[in-house]
Amino acid sequence: MEKIIGLIDAPFTPFYENGDVNLEPIPAYAKMLQKNGLKGVFINGSSGEGYMLTPEERMRLAEAWVAAAPKDFKVIVHVGSCCVRESRRLAEHAQKIGAWGIGAMAPPFPKIGRIEELVKYIEEIASGAPALPFYYYHIPAFNGAYLPMVKLLEAVDGRVPNFAGIKYTFESMYEYNQCRLYKNGKYDMLHGQDETILPCLAMGGAQGGIGGTTNYNGKNLVGIIEAWNRGDLEAARALQNYSQAVINVICHFRGNIVGGKRIMKLIGLDLGPNRTPFQNITPEEEVQLRKELEEIGFFQHCNEF
Amino acid sequence: MEKIIGLIDAPFTPFYENGDVNLEPIPAYAKMLQKNGLKGVFINGSSGEGYMLTPEERMRLAEAWVAAAPKDFKVIVHVGSCCVRESRRLAEHAQKIGAWGIGAMAPPFPKIGRIEELVKYIEEIASGAPALPFYYYHIPAFNGAYLPMVKLLEAVDGRVPNFAGIKYTFESMYEYNQCRLYKNGKYDMLHGQDETILPCLAMGGAQGGIGGTTNYNGKNLVGIIEAWNRGDLEAARALQNYSQAVINVICHFRGNIVGGKRIMKLIGLDLGPNRTPFQNITPEEEVQLRKELEEIGFFQHCNEF
Amino acid sequence: MEKIIGLIDAPFTPFYENGDVNLEPIPAYAKMLQKNGLKGVFINGSSGEGYMLTPEERMRLAEAWVAAAPKDFKVIVHVGSCCVRESRRLAEHAQKIGAWGIGAMAPPFPKIGRIEELVKYIEEIASGAPALPFYYYHIPAFNGAYLPMVKLLEAVDGRVPNFAGIKYTFESMYEYNQCRLYKNGKYDMLHGQDETILPCLAMGGAQGGIGGTTNYNGKNLVGIIEAWNRGDLEAARALQNYSQAVINVICHFRGNIVGGKRIMKLIGLDLGPNRTPFQNITPEEEVQLRKELEEIGFFQHCNEF
Amino acid sequence: MEKIIGLIDAPFTPFYENGDVNLEPIPAYAKMLQKNGLKGVFINGSSGEGYMLTPEERMRLAEAWVAAAPKDFKVIVHVGSCCVRESRRLAEHAQKIGAWGIGAMAPPFPKIGRIEELVKYIEEIASGAPALPFYYYHIPAFNGAYLPMVKLLEAVDGRVPNFAGIKYTFESMYEYNQCRLYKNGKYDMLHGQDETILPCLAMGGAQGGIGGTTNYNGKNLVGIIEAWNRGDLEAARALQNYSQAVINVICHFRGNIVGGKRIMKLIGLDLGPNRTPFQNITPEEEVQLRKELEEIGFFQHCNEF
Repeated sequence: MEKIIGLIDAPFTPFYENGDVNLEPIPAYAKMLQKNGLKGVFINGSSGEGYMLTPEERMRLAEAWVAAAPKDFKVIVHVGSCCVRESRRLAEHAQKIGAWGIGAMAPPFPKIGRIEELVKYIEEIASGAPALPFYYYHIPAFNGAYLPMVKLLEAVDGRVPNFAGIKYTFESMYEYNQCRLYKNGKYDMLHGQDETILPCLAMGGAQGGIGGTTNYNGKNLVGIIEAWNRGDLEAARALQNYSQAVINVICHFRGNIVGGKRIMKLIGLDLGPNRTPFQNITPEEEVQLRKELEEIGFFQHCNEF
Repeated sequence: MEKIIGLIDAPFTPFYENGDVNLEPIPAYAKMLQKNGLKGVFINGSSGEGYMLTPEERMRLAEAWVAAAPKDFKVIVHVGSCCVRESRRLAEHAQKIGAWGIGAMAPPFPKIGRIEELVKYIEEIASGAPALPFYYYHIPAFNGAYLPMVKLLEAVDGRVPNFAGIKYTFESMYEYNQCRLYKNGKYDMLHGQDETILPCLAMGGAQGGIGGTTNYNGKNLVGIIEAWNRGDLEAARALQNYSQAVINVICHFRGNIVGGKRIMKLIGLDLGPNRTPFQNITPEEEVQLRKELEEIGFFQHCNEF
Repeated sequence: MEKIIGLIDAPFTPFYENGDVNLEPIPAYAKMLQKNGLKGVFINGSSGEGYMLTPEERMRLAEAWVAAAPKDFKVIVHVGSCCVRESRRLAEHAQKIGAWGIGAMAPPFPKIGRIEELVKYIEEIASGAPALPFYYYHIPAFNGAYLPMVKLLEAVDGRVPNFAGIKYTFESMYEYNQCRLYKNGKYDMLHGQDETILPCLAMGGAQGGIGGTTNYNGKNLVGIIEAWNRGDLEAARALQNYSQAVINVICHFRGNIVGGKRIMKLIGLDLGPNRTPFQNITPEEEVQLRKELEEIGFFQHCNEF
Repeated sequence: MEKIIGLIDAPFTPFYENGDVNLEPIPAYAKMLQKNGLKGVFINGSSGEGYMLTPEERMRLAEAWVAAAPKDFKVIVHVGSCCVRESRRLAEHAQKIGAWGIGAMAPPFPKIGRIEELVKYIEEIASGAPALPFYYYHIPAFNGAYLPMVKLLEAVDGRVPNFAGIKYTFESMYEYNQCRLYKNGKYDMLHGQDETILPCLAMGGAQGGIGGTTNYNGKNLVGIIEAWNRGDLEAARALQNYSQAVINVICHFRGNIVGGKRIMKLIGLDLGPNRTPFQNITPEEEVQLRKELEEIGFFQHCNEF
């Protein structure tokens, strides 16, 4: 199966002020991402508030992104939900409309406690889009699914034919590397934490990844991989340190889903509010957010339109 | 606002073998519950695999239960989901079709960390069914929302007009009692753990409750309250101990959602399988389940048709 | 084996201002506790900052309490520590000096994950004081030992001859009751949460218990049992509700170890500061603590000298 | 303050079969470690079962290691315990006997919840050995002290004069790097996870570290740093992958404290059993352990005497 090379962006979902999904910004959004070096999008995931959307909204968004995608720009649709039937229907839809791939995280409810439960869940969804690669989205801090990923690979191997790999959003580089080494790299291990691309490259991974801060800091994150690949360790370190400085700022503003989304407005692409139960950035917080970004020279280095 | 007196049942959702929702058993189900002393149902909750259903399935189920409900039999619709818009739509639907009340647990994703997030979530849903009482379903073991419930009551008081009370499915009788004492019993505190009805009655609570094992052991659970109210402590203790013995059995079979649902078949109302990611009771397990129930004389004491 | 009837107090450890252990208040302390209806003490436990004491300090305290104990006043010595050798030595010492019994909680490090580990730990300690009853102190919120207690009883039964029972400081009244019912009450189940004595009595338990707020509110807590036993439910409820109101206050002041200890000074028995890493009540906090206690009429109902 | 360059070993504590501490192997142990490239030892830590030792045993061990230490071989004494007085006494002792440094992890009980509690704990201990560097041992998986380490550095800076740095045994390379960047590297950030030395080197860290598998695999772990420093990325990757394969094996045998300790016997230095509540490797397990190690050619690559 093809392996993803380069960084995929996890876009935010644009909303109108009244809370309806807003499809209008998507063509400009896709174009901007590609211009800054991103190779595609992983839509309706956690950054995209996918779990907070109705199934209809998720399908409309998928259609809009597929329609807006420039040439060679991959659209991966996150179809995970607490309802496996719903997820399977979303998988079928993704295949039908021409998405490049699909993905799903483990449901947060009921909490998955055993590999077999997870495999059954994956199997039922992945079989709805047999022509597309399926990526398991491992993000246990969000759903409590602290399961051993090598065991997952062993369990799906030979059972889920379109299982492509894992979007690995967890801190254990040891486990990441063990997954990467499984059957000499049989599965595609997408690095999922923008703060540690460089260390992961050193270990042999991170040539492909999915980022959340790539929405506004993608140029620098792509730059880490480029610098590493041309052997310029100092440049790679500088870009990784800088990218951590950006992440330090969003940690002061309720993380990427809330704080990061507001940064999009500050760089020129207003994507509107977050959906309840997220607490939106207040006007006072926005002033402070801009200030902290200015202090690290962010607006001279961020993504460009 | 009216307070619920007696026990409400949290029914399982019937499925056909192919996994489709099966509405056929519902009239007989409702009749059986009332015959055994239950005062209503809390549908599409955790026992009902509500989170594992599509919005359409949830609406069809609500309609079927409202249609099947005997006189004076309350139908409360759990409308909680990760998507507040979906939940609000389900709340509107519940009011339109004539449900008695609605409820919602905190979403498991994103994990609720602050009272204000929870209040906003509740507010948006409850306002979709302004004519119905709204019950917050507190079950932190399932969704990680370990928030202080007295603080919740203080926060909704004066802000969510149709907030009626809490279905309290947590072990802290201290907190339960503090909620009960809030403004001399302003809110309806529904006891939500069948294993501890008697101790809760002693403290002054549990005159109303919502049970999961009431589906098959309702007669005995109702009996605890009756015995207590007529001053027969020994009978109440015997029934509570017996009810714990029943719960001991289901703990060996992956709990009420899986093991309890299969008991329904054993007492004469086959409700079909569970939905993925639940792991269904195997035929071998079913034999063992029946055996353990026979050992405690269950089939002589269980709910009757 | 004899079962404990009535409430045992978990005393605070007195310190001088310089942080040394102060044995002087102990005779007056013991006398006061007995006067208010307490049947003994469980020393060097969590309220007593036992884990924060050196082995020598623990032995001196045990000696002082045994020496000060009035007739028929039980001294149970908590000997648990991360070092099983140390604990065994403390157990031997307790027996040698004439303590009534011993107890130990599971060590917080290494975190106990299996019953067999816990049994081995208990066995090694209990065998150091073969003539004394051993109580396992179950307080998983403090040490992470969330193990099933019925399984523990099954495992020690026939293996640890002086295993007497459990000081059960956890919210599950279901599990408490199941332990109580084990072999028709073979083991002594001491209730360990002052906020829920009444509900536990209703279920058939709580005739014996170990309290932390009994240090200053013992008269009322003893009163709950007395009222229940004479059939006065309303009085029992009033006293239980009142006792919860007292606990509500200490929850505002970092709990019983810190806030409760300072209450002792306010009722006339200054026991000095807490040991690091506890953060002592500041003078400003003390003023506020007194105020909140006055608002519930505490000084008219608290323990008397 | 001097920064540690190279890897420090966290040795196991030798016991006789009867469970007494055995000081005899220590000279040979120290010599072997130095021969394989280790720069010192961090004794009485988690690998050394320090929390399971009496204070006297800890002091005797410290004396034996200081006496056995070859020239330029650092002895750092872990003095942490639940009793800050005990820890301070151990710190004083360490300084008196000529140890190179001291360290302490946060106590597992009471669980540390705030930076100020931790700083007070550190301050009280570190001031007992003012002439020695103090290292905070961050291992939240063991003691629940999930506190932000940059905040700790800010809090001790200017307040604890001999605070030298952190032994960082946690997965977040992002936080590790932020600590490393604090005031341009003011504090010594010792890498504490043998499975991720290479990625950490890439980010600019890990020139100093403390390992647990260095006891038997130190040569290869030291080799990672050497390969990296001479620019041989492929060799560094091979050694890191190999070191992970070794760790994979000990994960099958209850981790390093239990499984790793038994490996010492297999390479020729029998250190005896573990202390309760650890469950010792059985003879059958030992056969299997040897087999799994042979399968990865361990005995051709392990530490040499």
